[in-house]
Amino acid sequence: MNIKVFVSLREGVLDPQGQAIREALNRTGYSNVNDVRVNKVFEISVSGSKDSIKADVEKFSKELLANPIIETFRIEWGE
Amino acid sequence: MNIKVFVSLREGVLDPQGQAIREALNRTGYSNVNDVRVNKVFEISVSGSKDSIKADVEKFSKELLANPIIETFRIEWGE
Repeated sequence: MNIKVFVSLREGVLDPQGQAIREALNRTGYSNVNDVRVNKVFEISVSGSKDSIKADVEKFSKELLANPIIETFRIEWGE
Repeated sequence: MNIKVFVSLREGVLDPQGQAIREALNRTGYSNVNDVRVNKVFEISVSGSKDSIKADVEKFSKELLANPIIETFRIEWGE
């Protein structure tokens, strides 16, 4: 099945990449852009039913895809 | 208002970062992971109503956030 894992920086954690993009946009004429944060989506194909893979996917999302100190994650289960 | 710009690699474009993550997952015991693609979500705060900023957001998404040769993008309009 196909799943998506959305990994986002926790509130309050600085995002230098997002800041650089905001500054570039402001300089390029988009002065109304106030804030940019860059997050990730992992699109993953895994063999097995949701029941059989749920624990694994939650485990590797927490331990390998996200850094729980500065990031949170959310899993979207597809087909 | 808050908008999200989802930037994804076009089908057929190689994703070395995703491949490296798939290999790491396979090595770590998750042998049922077949494919991983890493995409980006830009969360952006822009001053103005949707009507007043729509053209600007579409323009900078196409020209600055995504590389149209290898990526596609989709805009989600929030509040």
